[in-house]
Amino acid sequence: MEGLYVIKIGGNIIDDESVLKSFLKKFADIPGKKILVHGGGKLATRMAEKMGIPQQLVDGRRVTDAETLKIVTMVYAGYINKNIVACLQSLHCNTIGICGADGNSILAHKRLRGSSATGIPANETSAGFALNRSSHSETAENTGLTGNDTSTDYGFAGDIDSVNTEWIGSLLHQGLALVTAPITHDGKNQLLNTNADSIAQEIAKAMSKSFQVQLIYSFEKAGVLLDVNDDRTVIHSINPSYYQELKATEKIFAGMIPKLDNAFAAISQGVKKVIIGKGEDLANLLNGKSGTTICHE
Amino acid sequence: MEGLYVIKIGGNIIDDESVLKSFLKKFADIPGKKILVHGGGKLATRMAEKMGIPQQLVDGRRVTDAETLKIVTMVYAGYINKNIVACLQSLHCNTIGICGADGNSILAHKRLRGSSATGIPANETSAGFALNRSSHSETAENTGLTGNDTSTDYGFAGDIDSVNTEWIGSLLHQGLALVTAPITHDGKNQLLNTNADSIAQEIAKAMSKSFQVQLIYSFEKAGVLLDVNDDRTVIHSINPSYYQELKATEKIFAGMIPKLDNAFAAISQGVKKVIIGKGEDLANLLNGKSGTTICHE
Repeated sequence: MEGLYVIKIGGNIIDDESVLKSFLKKFADIPGKKILVHGGGKLATRMAEKMGIPQQLVDGRRVTDAETLKIVTMVYAGYINKNIVACLQSLHCNTIGICGADGNSILAHKRLRGSSATGIPANETSAGFALNRSSHSETAENTGLTGNDTSTDYGFAGDIDSVNTEWIGSLLHQGLALVTAPITHDGKNQLLNTNADSIAQEIAKAMSKSFQVQLIYSFEKAGVLLDVNDDRTVIHSINPSYYQELKATEKIFAGMIPKLDNAFAAISQGVKKVIIGKGEDLANLLNGKSGTTICHE
Repeated sequence: MEGLYVIKIGGNIIDDESVLKSFLKKFADIPGKKILVHGGGKLATRMAEKMGIPQQLVDGRRVTDAETLKIVTMVYAGYINKNIVACLQSLHCNTIGICGADGNSILAHKRLRGSSATGIPANETSAGFALNRSSHSETAENTGLTGNDTSTDYGFAGDIDSVNTEWIGSLLHQGLALVTAPITHDGKNQLLNTNADSIAQEIAKAMSKSFQVQLIYSFEKAGVLLDVNDDRTVIHSINPSYYQELKATEKIFAGMIPKLDNAFAAISQGVKKVIIGKGEDLANLLNGKSGTTICHE
């Protein structure tokens, strides 16, 4: 089967124009089929502040009310998405920017009260794979590590139901790179703010039917660390048995476990590899010289 | 050759949610291949005001400075475009929303000082075919009727160079309806604010190589009127000889002439028909019962 890279980037890349441009140059250089999933960075929060739209946080997680949904649709599917596309075009990487409504590519439903905390929309920040909450000031907004919550209404937050693999495949076969904004829809005229990590994961799993998918999470750390404060302690690769050992000996932070569980779930559902590391070092992540690789063996 | 409708809507439809929804229902019902080109409505202006971004007007025309470009990219390519796509999906019309950067669909260049006034970005308003400037309070921003200007810098305003007919055709052949935002790019990492009337016109002309194109301009009036204040005086159709007669006898307003000249230019470059009228009455525009048809014979 042909290869496909699904690469997720967050705020630590999006929020810095020169870092983003440098990353996109590396993305453009990747040969073959590729999908970039971006979060939202800090711009939506700044816009909401400027426009006087109060941002409601529950247990540190953002609630997407109707006004906030407008802002994130503008910023994520408009400003960030189209600027990335224009930059990639200038690098001779023919690209299409989509959200989940385009071509019915990602169907979701409005999160029900009391549903699992996975898929919390938190595209404002980068740290989808934050090692623990205290390690990064933004983490609380986006990891959903505080467990389930049976009462909170997260507003227009989407949990993914399906990915239109046929259409996404047809765009890739046209030679296009895809850039996906973290906005989905429910098929009933409702756009939904959707966690970019979850989008990357669901696309990667779904596309594994037709491609050998490698899922890359760009991260503010160099990978999964034995010492969260020391980027030199990156664990090069983790297979299921080593993962059990790491958990048993408490060598990885509890906060990392749900994320690694998700990575292993992706692996068990057909994704060939999950790689976690610094997007700035993309080429080395892809050739195995940097980052942490989650794999079967 | 197969038929293709290229339909442009502006602020008088976009700015009213119920009017837009009703229009989209009619758009979804059109059988066959179709492209919707939307302007921007008033939201971008309101956003700029809220965010304290001064809007500079020169001779009544908006200047797209860097901050305004950010706003229009958000509002046009993000909020408006994706809400239209989500609405059409809910009506079982499979749709993709694009701007000119996506798939390199529309290449443009930043307008040079001293270039023609055609293509003034004025997506904030609907009246691309305003009969005369005094007839509509918003007209001055978007008709470009004040003639050429050799000194004004319109900022990040784009004049169209080319349309990627092959790619647009491939999307149409996938069974998708296209929704095009009035944002283009220059291929050098610059997005550009581009007049939606011009986008509709250039797409219609370019696609005429492969399709029998009908270009529909939705308008706040019922069509080209003999009496601008009386919607009952719609001229049903205008061919070149009747147009000469109308001009010679001064039966149409001077302000309408550049627009009709453009329509006849489209006809002479392969577009089968240009229809001008109320988008709210879309079915009747398409079957010839309403509006003004510009045609060869």
